[in-house]
Amino acid sequence: MNTLLVLDYAGVAVFAVTGALAASRKQLDLIGFLFLASVTGIGGGTLRDVILGAAPVFWVTNPVYILVCAAMALLVYFTAHLIESRYRLLLWFDAAGLAAYCVMGAAKGLAATGSATVALVTGVLTATFGGILRDLLSGEPSVLLRPEIYVTAALAGAGTYTVATMAGMPPALAAGLAIAVAFMVRGGALAFGWTFPRYRPRAGRSEDELKRDGIVRSE
Amino acid sequence: MNTLLVLDYAGVAVFAVTGALAASRKQLDLIGFLFLASVTGIGGGTLRDVILGAAPVFWVTNPVYILVCAAMALLVYFTAHLIESRYRLLLWFDAAGLAAYCVMGAAKGLAATGSATVALVTGVLTATFGGILRDLLSGEPSVLLRPEIYVTAALAGAGTYTVATMAGMPPALAAGLAIAVAFMVRGGALAFGWTFPRYRPRAGRSEDELKRDGIVRSE
Amino acid sequence: MNTLLVLDYAGVAVFAVTGALAASRKQLDLIGFLFLASVTGIGGGTLRDVILGAAPVFWVTNPVYILVCAAMALLVYFTAHLIESRYRLLLWFDAAGLAAYCVMGAAKGLAATGSATVALVTGVLTATFGGILRDLLSGEPSVLLRPEIYVTAALAGAGTYTVATMAGMPPALAAGLAIAVAFMVRGGALAFGWTFPRYRPRAGRSEDELKRDGIVRSE
Repeated sequence: MNTLLVLDYAGVAVFAVTGALAASRKQLDLIGFLFLASVTGIGGGTLRDVILGAAPVFWVTNPVYILVCAAMALLVYFTAHLIESRYRLLLWFDAAGLAAYCVMGAAKGLAATGSATVALVTGVLTATFGGILRDLLSGEPSVLLRPEIYVTAALAGAGTYTVATMAGMPPALAAGLAIAVAFMVRGGALAFGWTFPRYRPRAGRSEDELKRDGIVRSE
Repeated sequence: MNTLLVLDYAGVAVFAVTGALAASRKQLDLIGFLFLASVTGIGGGTLRDVILGAAPVFWVTNPVYILVCAAMALLVYFTAHLIESRYRLLLWFDAAGLAAYCVMGAAKGLAATGSATVALVTGVLTATFGGILRDLLSGEPSVLLRPEIYVTAALAGAGTYTVATMAGMPPALAAGLAIAVAFMVRGGALAFGWTFPRYRPRAGRSEDELKRDGIVRSE
Repeated sequence: MNTLLVLDYAGVAVFAVTGALAASRKQLDLIGFLFLASVTGIGGGTLRDVILGAAPVFWVTNPVYILVCAAMALLVYFTAHLIESRYRLLLWFDAAGLAAYCVMGAAKGLAATGSATVALVTGVLTATFGGILRDLLSGEPSVLLRPEIYVTAALAGAGTYTVATMAGMPPALAAGLAIAVAFMVRGGALAFGWTFPRYRPRAGRSEDELKRDGIVRSE
């Protein structure tokens, strides 16, 4: 079993855990756990394959991925009550999934096109899309809009893998390095609250203020 | 016209009705009815085709599906005021669409791969995705997070079809049986409030409680 | 460089600006600007290519589109504080993107299938999907649910292009005419508050009222 395949299973499994944890926070039933775990687990890779034209997508070709998601859903269903803070655990598993998947996305994008730009974008999209779907479907506040560094970690991992393999590093080594970089960036952000300077001039006006000022018409 | 084609038109039509009913609840204009009816009607099947690599997708090959959606939008636009509870009707049409589409999705997934696991997943995704899109786009509370059984009905229908055809039942008969199973499960849930035991230990803390407890940083 | 390619770059660029403006309203960091600008810029065209089976999608084949999005994100990051109403500017750029992209979508749909119905649908989907993604990801109220005419403008542009080219007008001329029509319809709606008669009988009951009336079960 090669490195990228291991990464792929690992990424699917940890994202599936975050989907199941979101289901437990919303007190869904067991089928809800299976559904959210599967969608979160395979979402990012599905988008990657569709964009690159690799159809049918990876889990249609190899349904073991679905069984991995189902196993994670069951595991969380029976153990989540033991955990003090499921949301904090969700964020840490999400960080691990982000690290595994930004490298997988970059590797597939690079292999398909040879373009570093495409590798960066498929890396970031693959790493973030599962979490975006999970948050949309479970009504959690989007992880994208959280103040600490998030997309940057995926970009750092995808960039490290791309530069390292283009410079001739063996893929397995480059993947290990890139995962470490991505996880340290996102983990540091979670542990220490790392942020980039945010756009500060001013926040957008709310819908009500826009109506009051005549920028948006009242209905 | 074979059984699966009839099912496909039926699934598109009833999901289109639910999209148009959501548009009427939000008091959109006629074009809004057409848009929501079309997206809801063709959403699930589009995801199915993209995942299975059947591109271009079904309604590009056969645009009659779009005309079916448009006809349903017009029908609802001119008759919705006659209906006492449009949301209840939306839920029942959604149940019919779910039943038709979980079988269509499973049939196409099984035909494309021969894998029962893939058939279950494409069945569930096809049956639920149109409603997910409708709820996201119209700002309705997601049907996925409702307390009564929902995804389970799609899973039951997809499973019935898969097992029955694998056991040698003629596809048309298997489809009829599976639709009946899915519709009875979801219909029973709507009529009698059937639920599975939900995950009970405790609900997730709200964003505010997470901030208070230091699990999420305040901005 | 032919007309449609220019249109494509223009559509991507102006939608990228709207994504970056949404990022500035939410006070995201620079990477957040890049992410939202890229997803909004390439979202509609990605859906169009996936639906039509043109995989890999356009920006994978030609990554210059990504660089265009990145440039727009940087531009907005450093200039947005100069603008009095970023939301109003967002709506106008969105109108320009809608006009460019409804024509691009219709042109690709028509070229791929020869069907006017398909051209109308791919035109509308391409023109609206980037904005839908932007609003979902940034938590803005959906532009689809705004009271003034929106989807109609995309439909008018896609229809004008389709009819004009089918009647034998040269594509470049038809594209120019269709863009003007779409932009005037949406621009007029923004400037003068044009609306179609909305569905009036009554709005949908809220979730609370549905529970009170026993149409939705309380949990």
